[in-house]
Amino acid sequence: MNVLEQQLAHLVDECRPYTAQGKVADYIPELAHVQDDLLGVAICLPDGSYIHAGDVHHKFTIQSVSKALTLCYVLMEFGEDYVFSKVGMEPTGDAFNSIAKLEETVPSKPLNPMINAGALAVTSMILGDTAELKIYQFRQFLATLLDVPVEEVTYNEKVARSEYETTDLNRALLYFMRHHGIVEGDVDEIIDVYTKQCAIEIDCFDLARIGRILSGNGEDPVTGEELIPRRVVRIVKAIMTTCGMYDASGEFAVRVGLPGKSGVSGAILATGKHELGLSDVGFGIFGPALDSKGNSIAGMKLLELLVERYTSR
Amino acid sequence: MNVLEQQLAHLVDECRPYTAQGKVADYIPELAHVQDDLLGVAICLPDGSYIHAGDVHHKFTIQSVSKALTLCYVLMEFGEDYVFSKVGMEPTGDAFNSIAKLEETVPSKPLNPMINAGALAVTSMILGDTAELKIYQFRQFLATLLDVPVEEVTYNEKVARSEYETTDLNRALLYFMRHHGIVEGDVDEIIDVYTKQCAIEIDCFDLARIGRILSGNGEDPVTGEELIPRRVVRIVKAIMTTCGMYDASGEFAVRVGLPGKSGVSGAILATGKHELGLSDVGFGIFGPALDSKGNSIAGMKLLELLVERYTSR
Amino acid sequence: MNVLEQQLAHLVDECRPYTAQGKVADYIPELAHVQDDLLGVAICLPDGSYIHAGDVHHKFTIQSVSKALTLCYVLMEFGEDYVFSKVGMEPTGDAFNSIAKLEETVPSKPLNPMINAGALAVTSMILGDTAELKIYQFRQFLATLLDVPVEEVTYNEKVARSEYETTDLNRALLYFMRHHGIVEGDVDEIIDVYTKQCAIEIDCFDLARIGRILSGNGEDPVTGEELIPRRVVRIVKAIMTTCGMYDASGEFAVRVGLPGKSGVSGAILATGKHELGLSDVGFGIFGPALDSKGNSIAGMKLLELLVERYTSR
Amino acid sequence: MNVLEQQLAHLVDECRPYTAQGKVADYIPELAHVQDDLLGVAICLPDGSYIHAGDVHHKFTIQSVSKALTLCYVLMEFGEDYVFSKVGMEPTGDAFNSIAKLEETVPSKPLNPMINAGALAVTSMILGDTAELKIYQFRQFLATLLDVPVEEVTYNEKVARSEYETTDLNRALLYFMRHHGIVEGDVDEIIDVYTKQCAIEIDCFDLARIGRILSGNGEDPVTGEELIPRRVVRIVKAIMTTCGMYDASGEFAVRVGLPGKSGVSGAILATGKHELGLSDVGFGIFGPALDSKGNSIAGMKLLELLVERYTSR
Repeated sequence: MNVLEQQLAHLVDECRPYTAQGKVADYIPELAHVQDDLLGVAICLPDGSYIHAGDVHHKFTIQSVSKALTLCYVLMEFGEDYVFSKVGMEPTGDAFNSIAKLEETVPSKPLNPMINAGALAVTSMILGDTAELKIYQFRQFLATLLDVPVEEVTYNEKVARSEYETTDLNRALLYFMRHHGIVEGDVDEIIDVYTKQCAIEIDCFDLARIGRILSGNGEDPVTGEELIPRRVVRIVKAIMTTCGMYDASGEFAVRVGLPGKSGVSGAILATGKHELGLSDVGFGIFGPALDSKGNSIAGMKLLELLVERYTSR
Repeated sequence: MNVLEQQLAHLVDECRPYTAQGKVADYIPELAHVQDDLLGVAICLPDGSYIHAGDVHHKFTIQSVSKALTLCYVLMEFGEDYVFSKVGMEPTGDAFNSIAKLEETVPSKPLNPMINAGALAVTSMILGDTAELKIYQFRQFLATLLDVPVEEVTYNEKVARSEYETTDLNRALLYFMRHHGIVEGDVDEIIDVYTKQCAIEIDCFDLARIGRILSGNGEDPVTGEELIPRRVVRIVKAIMTTCGMYDASGEFAVRVGLPGKSGVSGAILATGKHELGLSDVGFGIFGPALDSKGNSIAGMKLLELLVERYTSR
Repeated sequence: MNVLEQQLAHLVDECRPYTAQGKVADYIPELAHVQDDLLGVAICLPDGSYIHAGDVHHKFTIQSVSKALTLCYVLMEFGEDYVFSKVGMEPTGDAFNSIAKLEETVPSKPLNPMINAGALAVTSMILGDTAELKIYQFRQFLATLLDVPVEEVTYNEKVARSEYETTDLNRALLYFMRHHGIVEGDVDEIIDVYTKQCAIEIDCFDLARIGRILSGNGEDPVTGEELIPRRVVRIVKAIMTTCGMYDASGEFAVRVGLPGKSGVSGAILATGKHELGLSDVGFGIFGPALDSKGNSIAGMKLLELLVERYTSR
Repeated sequence: MNVLEQQLAHLVDECRPYTAQGKVADYIPELAHVQDDLLGVAICLPDGSYIHAGDVHHKFTIQSVSKALTLCYVLMEFGEDYVFSKVGMEPTGDAFNSIAKLEETVPSKPLNPMINAGALAVTSMILGDTAELKIYQFRQFLATLLDVPVEEVTYNEKVARSEYETTDLNRALLYFMRHHGIVEGDVDEIIDVYTKQCAIEIDCFDLARIGRILSGNGEDPVTGEELIPRRVVRIVKAIMTTCGMYDASGEFAVRVGLPGKSGVSGAILATGKHELGLSDVGFGIFGPALDSKGNSIAGMKLLELLVERYTSR
């Protein structure tokens, strides 16, 4: 264990007590069963190697972190003009699952792709004759990013099914948007793709690698191959900066200042910035106890302290 | 033709030109095909006989007028405590199809049964193993009111189907309410019942007879039999008064002052009040050209002039 | 004491315990000092005589009941076209002091004259070089209705001053409406007139007499003189019916069914309808303990029982 | 003229035609008189020297750019705990002058200091017995930043007065917030300070220097003296990033990606980021023709092209 890794381990020890102030998401039974004091962090260094500390060997579902990645995917597939004709790029002060703002906005375009309405609109763009083919596209995209065979990118069927059956609010958003011409197609199929996409299982190393790709302008840190075009990386990082942490995005910008995206499984993906000492790196965090905004309570603290202590900002 | 009927015929002639300022509803193709200068009125007199003028021999779909009648039905079946635990009795300044207010209200109870959310919640209460059995209950209730065999209360399948396929906004409302525990059951089935209920075909005489029953405290004007309990009549008339004409309900109360309910087919059901000379009567109007609020433009004018000239108010 | 008066006294005894479930308004210190179990009712009979029961000899400030009366006044002075160009006639599901709806509505016209924004717009129409001259106009109008010299229509200076100093929300509404061209003139002066108008002191007999005038189409019950034009009476009663009881107006229409207006002092003005046995009468109630909507809790119950037991509805 | 300055001059020539698509702010007569095709830019380099192009020798009022600077000032004076107890740090999807969100939020705290409600709350914190003394504090702070005597930091009295007289919407916001305990004190005095603060006259060089101070962690680029603490700089830049460009902040983050703040005079303050080739610099732009969101239309384009062509992102 090198010095950096020792420091990271200390940081995890220091932050783990914060898990006691949070709460594991319980709206999906499968999520509620997780041990609530887990905390793990992996950092993907410029050369693609990792340092890590804490509970990094757990798998967890990607949940809303997928919003940033489907956005990447559709921007690459369909171009920004098309994508932003269906979804905006402005942050919102409303809750991530709010429908009222859609009604007040003319046209009824979701404000950004990080709220549920926007992410559903993005997911509805994925092509394919069936839900399975659509989710396969996205799994393939993830497999490329993670440099693994597509078979290794799998989703948790129980979590997906559980969410599929209880996600009436997302159905309401989709029917509302279909009424207003923002989405097309079969709502249940979009929900099927969406819940499977959210149920894809990853770990801290996966998140850290993706964060590293984003901090490196879209290039594979080992091979240098372009996995995501520079322009798309820039758009996605900008939107993660302004909208990535639900309605704590502004506070995250102030306290941490990195482009990031969180999920209710306790996942956080974050990506370094040049102006920090730890630039050109990627962060993957797992800490399932959430704060009241739905972000990993200990994970947020860990990032805050890490930036405060080990960067030049 | 007696004097009253002559006066009514003059009134129809005077009001028919207003149809040119209105527009036939076109969101359902079946509704859009109607001749737009039609105007007919029937008045059911205290003894159950009718006077009429204009185009009273057209059949049309009942549309939102059904909201007042399903409310009658569920109040009779389930009692006011249960019904008002799921839907409020307050008028709203928002549009009849608004979803934003549901989000802002805690609990997410529709404000009243005359807006779509409320009417859908009411429809969801109707019991029956299938949509057909549920709509049969309501047809039977109507048949009793109209004193006809249930087979004569039929719905227009093309209109029902057309609305079923395009009613995404109502689906959004239902999923939103199901998420919040206001409705239960299969959303598509509720939509099926709802669109069939709205597609039931009636004429001006039918509406006038129902208006007469309401003005007569729920009794059959001919036999004196109680068809609707007095208490239910009172509740439904009060809610028609404050909420019956979409967001022109307040203006209707000022200009006409009768409990009424309108539908986008151009139907208006209105019921007399003791304080008017024309008390103890019921009104049935058909005038498919609508004003911007969705009410029959010539029908509203006809009621306004009728109350202005022939009552003591 | 005649039979009617005995029945009324029993009703007051029956309803007084409900005061224990309510709360005296405390946002103005002067209002908070009132004894909270008071309950009084006066009924002005068709001939202008009164029956009464309970605590009818207390004076209290008129508060929001004035909204119905300034509406009468401006309709008589400026005509309905002008008045309704500045304020609507539609009920609202929002709180009486809400500002959000003004922002969402285009143009920013208050929905009706019974919410604060609408009442302030109405008050701003009163002419006069100074606040004193304006409030004098309104006192003179009230003096005519009550058949007393204008000197006897006085306002409570401490209540007016207390409200003037704390009524920031009303100032916000006025500045917002002035920005949108709904009101003109000096905001502090309008607030001055408004708070004095709300602080005018009356008693149950005064309210009952005004209720009697409204039930009698605007005529003085004793002399038959027209005090308010029939058309204005009709408009005001319609608006009281749909909007008179804050956001319990719909429930009041269901449970009581009379045009009424309440104030946070615990005042209720109500007016009979022909279809009730107690038609052609006026009601004045005082019961300062309020329910959560701001209406006299025992007063509402009293009206409900009175209509339930002594009318034919 | 060096190479960089030549490139900048070309850029101004390229962007000036965009002014034809914009519109000079006309809600204040004084602003409306400005020539609408002006465009100027100054860049303050790491060593504190400047390059510039276009119409940089015009003075203009600072308007909403002051929101970022009063935030600096109050953070330095009162600390972040106090400041953020009164105003949030979350971006909003609502308009900069919206009042509805304040009503919906509990407590009624403005979402961030870059919308009017938040900026007014910030201004209300400035201490001083009179409006003149308060505005003097802020002028002194600006004088320190600009390294000039306080007498040289002056405000345009006609603009201030003109805005003072027409700013009813801001008065509405202040009375609303005073009602909810977010601000205290005399509303007219706060408006007086606020309108004078917005009317302070600056030029492109001033803005560029301030941008340079912010990009340099708060240090004077020439002397290295700390003018603003590093922590305050970080907070203010984060909030400029998420909220600085009205409801085009998200789009600005995507297209430009620099912390910036705009004003309706056509002013833009922006500050470099390490990850751009043009890091450690500050930008000052003046282009009074505005887009529909209230930002300098040619100024935004200029920044977009500048970042696109001359940085490594």
